[in-house]
This record gives sequence, C-alpha cells and structure tokens, in this order.
Amino acid sequence: MLIPVIMSGGAGTRLWPVSRRAHPKPFMKLADNETLMEKTLARALAVTGSSVVLTVTSRDYYFLTRDEYLKNTTAGITYEYILEPFGRNTAPAIALAALRLQAEYGGETKMLVMPADHLIADQKAFKTAVDEAEKIADNGQLVTFGVNPTHAETGYGYLLHGEKIADSNGYKLAAFEEKPDLEIAQKYLDSGDYRWNSGMFLFRVNDILQALATHAPDVYNSALEVWSAIEPEDELVELPAEEFSRCPSISIDYAVMEAAENCAMVSGDFGWSDIGSWKAIRELYESDATGNRIRGKGIMIDSSDCFVQSDEGRIVAAIGVHNLVIIDTGDAVLVSDAEHSQEVKQVVSQLNLQQHESAIFHKTVHRPWGYFTVLEDANDCKVKRLVVKPGCILSLQRHQRRSEHWTVVAGTAKVRVGDKEFSLKANQSTYIPVDTMHRLENAEDEDLHLIEVQTGDYFGEDDIERFEDVYGRS
Amino acid sequence: MLIPVIMSGGAGTRLWPVSRRAHPKPFMKLADNETLMEKTLARALAVTGSSVVLTVTSRDYYFLTRDEYLKNTTAGITYEYILEPFGRNTAPAIALAALRLQAEYGGETKMLVMPADHLIADQKAFKTAVDEAEKIADNGQLVTFGVNPTHAETGYGYLLHGEKIADSNGYKLAAFEEKPDLEIAQKYLDSGDYRWNSGMFLFRVNDILQALATHAPDVYNSALEVWSAIEPEDELVELPAEEFSRCPSISIDYAVMEAAENCAMVSGDFGWSDIGSWKAIRELYESDATGNRIRGKGIMIDSSDCFVQSDEGRIVAAIGVHNLVIIDTGDAVLVSDAEHSQEVKQVVSQLNLQQHESAIFHKTVHRPWGYFTVLEDANDCKVKRLVVKPGCILSLQRHQRRSEHWTVVAGTAKVRVGDKEFSLKANQSTYIPVDTMHRLENAEDEDLHLIEVQTGDYFGEDDIERFEDVYGRS
Repeated sequence: MLIPVIMSGGAGTRLWPVSRRAHPKPFMKLADNETLMEKTLARALAVTGSSVVLTVTSRDYYFLTRDEYLKNTTAGITYEYILEPFGRNTAPAIALAALRLQAEYGGETKMLVMPADHLIADQKAFKTAVDEAEKIADNGQLVTFGVNPTHAETGYGYLLHGEKIADSNGYKLAAFEEKPDLEIAQKYLDSGDYRWNSGMFLFRVNDILQALATHAPDVYNSALEVWSAIEPEDELVELPAEEFSRCPSISIDYAVMEAAENCAMVSGDFGWSDIGSWKAIRELYESDATGNRIRGKGIMIDSSDCFVQSDEGRIVAAIGVHNLVIIDTGDAVLVSDAEHSQEVKQVVSQLNLQQHESAIFHKTVHRPWGYFTVLEDANDCKVKRLVVKPGCILSLQRHQRRSEHWTVVAGTAKVRVGDKEFSLKANQSTYIPVDTMHRLENAEDEDLHLIEVQTGDYFGEDDIERFEDVYGRS
Repeated sequence: MLIPVIMSGGAGTRLWPVSRRAHPKPFMKLADNETLMEKTLARALAVTGSSVVLTVTSRDYYFLTRDEYLKNTTAGITYEYILEPFGRNTAPAIALAALRLQAEYGGETKMLVMPADHLIADQKAFKTAVDEAEKIADNGQLVTFGVNPTHAETGYGYLLHGEKIADSNGYKLAAFEEKPDLEIAQKYLDSGDYRWNSGMFLFRVNDILQALATHAPDVYNSALEVWSAIEPEDELVELPAEEFSRCPSISIDYAVMEAAENCAMVSGDFGWSDIGSWKAIRELYESDATGNRIRGKGIMIDSSDCFVQSDEGRIVAAIGVHNLVIIDTGDAVLVSDAEHSQEVKQVVSQLNLQQHESAIFHKTVHRPWGYFTVLEDANDCKVKRLVVKPGCILSLQRHQRRSEHWTVVAGTAKVRVGDKEFSLKANQSTYIPVDTMHRLENAEDEDLHLIEVQTGDYFGEDDIERFEDVYGRS
C-alpha cells in the first residue's frame, strides 16, 4: 500500500504579490488556471493509485485546501488531514504523518512525500520513478528523488549518487549537499554524478520512524508526545499547540537523510520545477515573437522577454523594457528584473517589518463559507462584495462600531437581523444596526453575491463578536 | 491693458495613465499637489496684474477648469471663457480670443497667450520677459518667447534671433524652425543663435487680427463668421459647432508667425518646461541617495534612478531595475524606460484603437456637481462612491435597466424618489426602483459622500434619462 502524503506549508514569499501568507503559492493559479495544489493532488492519485491522501498543512489553509480538493472528481477518495498550529519544518511533519499512517494502516505502509507546490511536467516519467522507488523502499531503503540538473543552479540542494542498486534503476545515496555557490554548482554539474534534490521521498512508515528514532530521537520523541495527546478519531487531526511547540524545527534532510545509511536515490527527467520564482513561472507561458509572455491585458511597445501577469482587469503597458517581470494585483505591483526575481522575499521582509497588510492578505480573502473582496477601505466606510457558497452560513455575530447595509446582487440570502428572519432576493436590501445580532446564510444551490456597505468609525476584523459558528471560530 | 489668454486644449497623451482625455494634463497634480492649471492662473495674474482672465478651452473641461480657478483666492477677478466644441489648433482659438477682447476692451488691448500646461519655475525672470515683451508689442510687434536651450532637444521648435531691437532686450525674429532632427538640433545649439519656441506670445489685439487678415485670411474670415453667430452676453461664450467646424485647423505659428514681418522675440532663462513626458515630471521630485524618486508607496530593492508614482494607495515594489518610470493608477500601470517615455502616446493610440475606456476616463470621473469613483464594475452590479459638492444638485433622472441603492456615509442627502422628498443622514439608505424619477442634492455646507449600488443588467452612462439639469445636460 502506497499512500501520498502532501506537505503544504510555506508561504512562497518569492512569488509575492500573488502569493501571500493568507493565500500562498499552492493556491496560485498557473498558466492553465489550475493551482499547484490541484495538480499535486491529481498527480498523487495517478502515480500511487491510492484511495487515501494524507495532507499535512496549517490550520489556516484547511478550507482553502479542501476547496482545491473538491475540484477533483475522482470517486471514493478519503482525504485525511493533519493540521499544524504553526510550521516546524519537515521532520516533525513527516514523523507525525508516519505515526498516523502506522496507527491507521500499519507500519508496512509506504508513504510518498510530495510538497504541494512543485510542478512535474512529465507525469509518465514520474510514475516510472515512483514505481522504481517503491521497489527499492520494499528493501528498507529511504528513497530520494533526484532530478537531472540542466544548469548550475544555486537555489537547490544536490544528491551525489553512489553505486547502482542491483536489479533496479536506483542508486545508493552517497551524499546530501546543501545549496552550493556558483563555482561548486558548476563542478557538480560538470561531474555528472550529482542530481538536484527534489524534496520528495518514498519510504516505509516503519523505516522512517526507525530512522528518526535512531538519528533524530528528539524529533521522534516529541512527535510521539504530540501523537499521544490527540484522539485521532476522524479524518481531521489538529495538532495541539503546546506539545507541537516542543518539536524541534528541522528538515527531514538534516534530521535523517544526511545521517542514515539506508538512503537511496531514483533519478530522472520528469520536468520537475519547484516554481521558486517569477522567472520559473514565466517559463510556463508561451511567448510571442518578441519573447513577451502576457497573462491579462498587456500593451508592449519596444519591449522584449517580459512576463506580465495582471489578474484584476487592469492594463499593464510596458515601453522600452527587457527581461522584466511585471506582476499586478489589486493592491500591489511588482516590477523586477527577471534575474533578480529571487529578491522578492526582501520586499516581503520589508512589508512584514512595516506590518503592511499586503504581506498577508489579498483584497480577496477566503473564508470557510466563501470569500469577500474589499472594494473600498476608507475612514468613513468599508465596502465589500461577499460571495457565500451554496449551503454555507456565516457565524451569528454582532459589531460594536459599525452598521451594515446589505444589497443582494445574485442568489438569495437567508437573513437574520435581531429576532427577525427573512429572505432577500437580488435587488433587495436590508440594514443591520450597530450592536444587533445578525446572520447570513445561503440555503440555495447557487452562489449568493451581496454588496456590504459598512458605516461607522472602525471596520477591523476584530470588531466581530461570534456567538455561533459552524466552522469553530466562535 | 494686458490680459492673459490661457489656452487649454490638448489631452497630454504622453502622460497617460494619469492624463486622460476626460482629465487631461493641466489637471494632473504635480509634486507639490498643485495642478498646472492652478499654477498657470496664478502666474497669469501675477505677471500681468490683470483683473480679467480669458480662457479658451473645450466645453468638456469647463467645470474642471472652474474648479481649479476656485482654488485661487485673489479677489475681484473676472473669469471669461471661450468654449470650443472641438479642437481647431491655436490660430482659430487666438483669433476668437482677439475678437472677443476687441469687442470688450478695444483693439489696443494686449494679450499674453499662455498654454495651460507649461511650467515656469522662475516667475520673476518670466515677469521681466513679459514686461520687455509688452514694451516691444507697444510698437506693433508680435512677440514670441524664446527659451535658452540647454541641450539638443528634438521635441521643440526653434526661434532664430535677428538684430537687436533698439532700447530693449528683445530681438527681431529671423526665422521659425520646426522640430529638427538630432543633428540639426545640435547645430542650432552650437550656433548660439537659436532659442526654444515656448509657444507663448504677447501682442496687441489689433496687430494679431491684422496679421491674421493678411497672412491667414481663411482663418480670419471663418473666425469672424463664428463670432457673428454668437451673442457674447456673459462671461461664458460657447462657440457654435457648425460655424467653428469651418475654421481651418492650423497653428498660429504656421498661420501667422512664419509669414509676418513684424515678429520679435524676447528670450530668457525662466525655468520653462512643457512637462511633455514622464521624464520631465520626474525632475520635479527630489531624489534619494540612489536617484529614486517616489510619489506614494514604493519599495526599491537594488534599483536606481527610477520614478514611481502611485496615487491610489497601492504598493509598487521594484527590484534590480534602473532609470524606469513606473506609474500606477486605479486601472492601469505604465512601466517605461525613462528614455522611451515619449512613446507613451503609442500606448494611448493602441487603447483608442481598441476603444478602451482607460484612454478616456479614470476610475474617478469628474462631474459639474462633484465626482464619482467606480469601486466595482461587474456583470451583476456596479458600485460607486459619489461625492456631491455643497450646494450642488444632480439632474432629475430615470433609468430603464437598473435599480439603485444609496447609503449615505458622510454629510446629508436631500433625496427625491418618485413623488417623495426626504433627507438621508450618514448611515441611512434608500432604494430607487427601475423607471423611477429621482434626484440627489447636497443642500449642506460639507461634501456629501454616498455609496451607490446599482443592480440590473446594464450600467452604462447612456441609461440616464435627464429631465431637469442645472448644468444644461438634459
């Protein structure tokens, strides 16, 4: 039995302003309008044939992830989750995933660990590699996936292959190498003996737990403590913050793979990319005759080799510029030389220092019940478009410093204001005074769209008193 | 008597996306948050000492211009207007201005012709030049203003000076030269005999009319016909479209100055600029240590000599770029190499070809009664913030395809819906069904702000039936 374990943690700060802490890289739409999350799930199911998928992610991303998975129409799949209260790097996450799979499916179960935010263009070649890795893992090896390098990349770690493993296309792993400088990367490339470390793994549950116990006992023991503190009764396991905070924050590479003897490597050309920069995203789009690639509305004059992404209908005009990445969102514009696109994280650092919202939120914010888009955020009012998904209901709530005016533009709203309950159809409106209990529900089969005009003197999300909430937020 | 004639015509397409057809260059806010129009008026009053200002502009810009003039607090000024139904270049405009001044103030009146969209940094030096020009004009000369060239500019025309005029610092004008190529511009610069043509003039009304009659009789006669078709009874003269369309579209340079014998030139260093490109605007801002100039919120990483203007609160981040102009508005972004900033007009041409709104309108649209900003423009609804100035009233109107929901966020609205009239204060709302007469008024002393949610299936400005309008639009 081979079960995919999808690891979805980081924020992807190098892809700001589209990737934000509240809506990170796995949920970004790519050239084909699919997300990396959606693609990773489809790939996981296809290469493993599993009817179970275990996802390790943050509590914050649970609803977003579930929405992505709902796009998959494969029947009969069980989606299991481990929700982290905060990130602790990959070793504790893999340890807890292994403990859970051991408890549910037994220690002989194999797990294919896949980051949620990688792209693999050649799924057939990847399937071949996974099949090969599975055979090798059956002999107690911890298998890594190497990617044949195409250039002297300094942004990846490297795997040095050892001797060939008999009756297989895999190799013993001779060494794990950290991200090198350019000179060393070039040596690795020239030698022909190194592969890029893709960050994917395949091993038996018992083997990785054994390796953790041997080489990283602090990780192993703290993971056991976390595990003993929870009652994994359903598909959703929430890790307790206090116990989880005692796990060391360390990668599986450092904790286990660099030390263990039983490491192997399968390598191939399966079109892998970690989509780690806007320069990498650019490659996913077809270029025109001048090398420009445009998503959205772009007007290019005397410009070449640029990538433009504008998702909110705004026009981007470029004149006399070359090899630029221009990314436009509702509240931010990035203009970067493509060769400097790794430095985007410096922008995010500055925004975080300034506690600027655009490091975290988009103008469109996802919620368990749907999403809202801020249309106006001024001193005297805040205006939002709310979209409530069919069958969803917001919390019963109350505000102290604002009134709300709701106008339905599509669908039907079931509304409670004070003691009254009523329905509002398109083109009907209602008013919720300050300090009045209210609740909004979409009991129909189509999306409900409404415009909310808030008036008052403070419009922060913290002026929401929640009394009942089906999503556990009250 | 010297009367300033402010000419405000062109759209300034080289300053897109801030300058738009509906809100052109003279109304752009500069580094000090003043507009060129505002500055031009102040300069006109200061250098002439006149209590009358005549402005020749388009009907479309009348309300915008009046709002700019209202910012000027000089007491006792009479603002006169000639409103063109469309542009016919400078010769007909100057002819009609001269005819009007002749009728009102007599043919000995002198006129100082000033484009509305030029900047003059050294007003004292300019005042000296104007005083000099006035003396020369008293002897029947048509005086041009030359600017000492600082580089071989190909974007301006040139004036060749002739012999010095006795008892003055002026010269006879020896030749008018069109915009040269770079080689010729360099020759002009090296010779020391040429000045940039600033496009400003000073002459007696009778002299320019005489010159027009002699050298451009078609302009003169058609202007006379236009003049005879109107009854200039008040400060606002609207030119009749049919008669005005018969005027040849020609510049005063071609029509008169190149041919007339009685042309003179006064020249100086008064810090003149026609602010003809973003590169020129950039010079108005102070640079930081890396040469970056930023208006709004900019984060600059490894970037230098860039100009960033972002007026809507959006963040602009630049990485690894140099000498770029990055202009962000609500609906468009321009990224241009500073040396290519003249090519912005190519962008506007493309937008016009595509009939794209961003060539004409901003998200904020000015109206005689105030302005509105489009917050959302979707298929199912349109949301606007309306700001109505004190004492202003919108037209009595009706829509066939949309309902409107109004929520007042600041000020007090006097509202008529159907047969009812009532007041709405902040946090109160009302509803205007399809096909219902309605009218909005601000009878108070402070601005009225309201959020309008339109629902329906069509939200174009042409679904407004106007029945009564104090601004003559019904």
